[in-house]
Amino acid sequence: MAKITDFEQDIIDMIEQKSYKALKEKISDINPYDLAMLLDNFHDRNILLLFRLLPKDLAADTFVEMDKDRQRALIDSFSDKELREVIDELYIDDMVDIVEEMPANVVKRILKHSTENTRKTINQILKYPQDSAGSIMTTEFVSLRSNMTIAEAIAKLRRIGLDSETIDTCYVTDNKNTLIGYITLRTIVLSEDSNTIEELMDRNVISVNTFEDQEEVANMFGRYDLTVIPVVDNDNRLVGIVTIDDAWDVLERETTEDIELMAAITPSDTPYLKKTTFDIWKSRMPWLLILMISATFTGMIITRFENALQTYVILTAYIPMLMDTGGNSGSQSSVTIIRGLSLHELEFNDIFKVLWKESKVAILSGLTLAIVNFSKLMLLDKVGFNISLIVSSTLLITVIIAKTVGSSLPMLAKKIGFDPAVMASPFITTIVDAISLIFYFIITGIVLG
Amino acid sequence: MAKITDFEQDIIDMIEQKSYKALKEKISDINPYDLAMLLDNFHDRNILLLFRLLPKDLAADTFVEMDKDRQRALIDSFSDKELREVIDELYIDDMVDIVEEMPANVVKRILKHSTENTRKTINQILKYPQDSAGSIMTTEFVSLRSNMTIAEAIAKLRRIGLDSETIDTCYVTDNKNTLIGYITLRTIVLSEDSNTIEELMDRNVISVNTFEDQEEVANMFGRYDLTVIPVVDNDNRLVGIVTIDDAWDVLERETTEDIELMAAITPSDTPYLKKTTFDIWKSRMPWLLILMISATFTGMIITRFENALQTYVILTAYIPMLMDTGGNSGSQSSVTIIRGLSLHELEFNDIFKVLWKESKVAILSGLTLAIVNFSKLMLLDKVGFNISLIVSSTLLITVIIAKTVGSSLPMLAKKIGFDPAVMASPFITTIVDAISLIFYFIITGIVLG
Repeated sequence: MAKITDFEQDIIDMIEQKSYKALKEKISDINPYDLAMLLDNFHDRNILLLFRLLPKDLAADTFVEMDKDRQRALIDSFSDKELREVIDELYIDDMVDIVEEMPANVVKRILKHSTENTRKTINQILKYPQDSAGSIMTTEFVSLRSNMTIAEAIAKLRRIGLDSETIDTCYVTDNKNTLIGYITLRTIVLSEDSNTIEELMDRNVISVNTFEDQEEVANMFGRYDLTVIPVVDNDNRLVGIVTIDDAWDVLERETTEDIELMAAITPSDTPYLKKTTFDIWKSRMPWLLILMISATFTGMIITRFENALQTYVILTAYIPMLMDTGGNSGSQSSVTIIRGLSLHELEFNDIFKVLWKESKVAILSGLTLAIVNFSKLMLLDKVGFNISLIVSSTLLITVIIAKTVGSSLPMLAKKIGFDPAVMASPFITTIVDAISLIFYFIITGIVLG
Repeated sequence: MAKITDFEQDIIDMIEQKSYKALKEKISDINPYDLAMLLDNFHDRNILLLFRLLPKDLAADTFVEMDKDRQRALIDSFSDKELREVIDELYIDDMVDIVEEMPANVVKRILKHSTENTRKTINQILKYPQDSAGSIMTTEFVSLRSNMTIAEAIAKLRRIGLDSETIDTCYVTDNKNTLIGYITLRTIVLSEDSNTIEELMDRNVISVNTFEDQEEVANMFGRYDLTVIPVVDNDNRLVGIVTIDDAWDVLERETTEDIELMAAITPSDTPYLKKTTFDIWKSRMPWLLILMISATFTGMIITRFENALQTYVILTAYIPMLMDTGGNSGSQSSVTIIRGLSLHELEFNDIFKVLWKESKVAILSGLTLAIVNFSKLMLLDKVGFNISLIVSSTLLITVIIAKTVGSSLPMLAKKIGFDPAVMASPFITTIVDAISLIFYFIITGIVLG
């Protein structure tokens, strides 16, 4: 961090000394992401000043990397001409992201300064369901025809290639705009001018429908080692492309969402330090309340067995251990299954394989823990055979139930269309707690009468 | 799944009818990943048969996608000529992955059939520390000189481009092989033949050192929207490239590792269904044992306050609720911080900001829960003012401690070089349980004497 602060000081000095030429040189060499992080530490007034010194394309790329509050402040202070210049440099998918996050009056101003065509495209993309391939695609791609020669293709690329988000992969369509294949820029460059696209293209092209879920789209990049994927409508007509940088963001966002759900937090896109205390409270409170109130059941069970506990107070001492071990065993299974489902290593159809495997692991783990625990109770705690037996056999049963519940609930959730991530530690723990206590008291009844 | 099974049946029929030509056509159109999944369902003997029908490049790509047991079986049944053909088609980074996973005798056979050059390169890459940029890079890239013209660059690409893993981005080096810039294939194609690389290249090139941690390398792809990153040695000489497909795998693997650690599981690379019961047991057991034995403390605390519990058995009924709520509150904080750290949204330096924010959230959440709980105890459970006061104030204190411990431990772990993911729910729960019980009994002492 110290390095950035020195650098920042230099910039502040230059601003004060109005040495704009040196300043321009100093900041024009920075990457858009680093530049956005740097600008984030400055006052709005200075951001605008620095922003005006940047080359147009770098300015637009940096703009995309800023958070929405900064973007909004910048747009508000842009002249109409500046706004138009930034808009001209932006890719459609980034425009859509910005439009989605800005308040109505800012959106109105953005659209007013966009071309008729851009406006139309943005409106089309906005119509796709949230989290669909259509909503994250861009329409700036190159499509080639199969009867073109390589020379003709290169001529077309030179004409429109600069405005496309990527031309590393070009898609081949027929006269109805149906996707029929793809050809990489590498193949184009390495081939003779007189070859036709038809001869060189690969017809085995992987595409997604506009309505495909973005998480599935992201997974396909990993599975098939792609850097761009074409998006087609229901008639297999090419309507857009999704590039891997957007898929990467989807992957990171969806993983964060899974992890937050697993920890009983309502997911949100805002980075931690940008969230207000109230935001955080709101995302955590409902779950804590629900789980606290569900714990009423465990309380009721304990109250019902008050007499047993009064006679054998020592039984109370092992309740936390039983519940924690149950919770941990269950969450190991549930988290493993949830991750397997989201990596598509597991499907609902595998449920019997999973249950069989988890049962074996459960019995093995339960026995290990029960034996260690029994020895500890007999030799260290010296609580006598009966208590040791009660606690250890409850432990065995708890671990088996925890692993069975923990592995089956996420799969069932997936099957009925819920997010499996909800079925993680907190939820499983609450269920396992109650079941484990019931067995604790039943076994106590059997052993001690 | 049904679709694949039909398809598989077709293939089985074709094998039996020995209609190899039709079979060849049927399988040559499948993607390497899907093909590897498909082959996984066949017997080794049939895999070899199908494999032999594939075009050489598809065969090699499919080989890379298979799991290591299948790869080993195939290598064992390959003739020397077949082995050489597959090796010829593989990229160096994939070769290294395979060599790392095969037993010594198989490695020996692979190296015997590789060229002198390949052997040397593999040995060099194997020398880099595990999880370093050097260990995941490939050495098959194109480097250009700044004094080349575009025409000369294209000529070079045509000569060696086919053997490079990617030429979408080419790196520019000086005569000492020092990395001085990059130029995209797109820029090359869109420029005039007479331009020089010098005029067109971008000198602002992001690179990583061979010893950089692979997780950090993967993060840089996301941050800077790259599809390939150059790897340099300590003298800034270009030694390799990492492509985004490998970075994607690293990202998924490291995330799985984080998630497994958070659920108290020792991470492993093997997919769930390929793990044996014993593997799973081994990865889960140590943590369950450690956590079970740590729960001894909570037992000891309860035993010390046996008398209080015997007099007020009702207090026992609220122990599970207090402990679960504490565990959930703590894991919300710890998981949020762990994810923030691994996305680089948070650094150790932010610890005071984080603690301040979490304290505010903790007080707000604690008060909400305590108020709801107090009302429930008074109005529904009707346990009287004193017990309601004891339970609710313990709840408030528990939530505050849980959130403070939950947010600070991962940051401290990061600071001293441990993986913050270990400081998640199970670990935090164990600590919070003990503290919460101590306060429970102290407050009971104060209120009831």
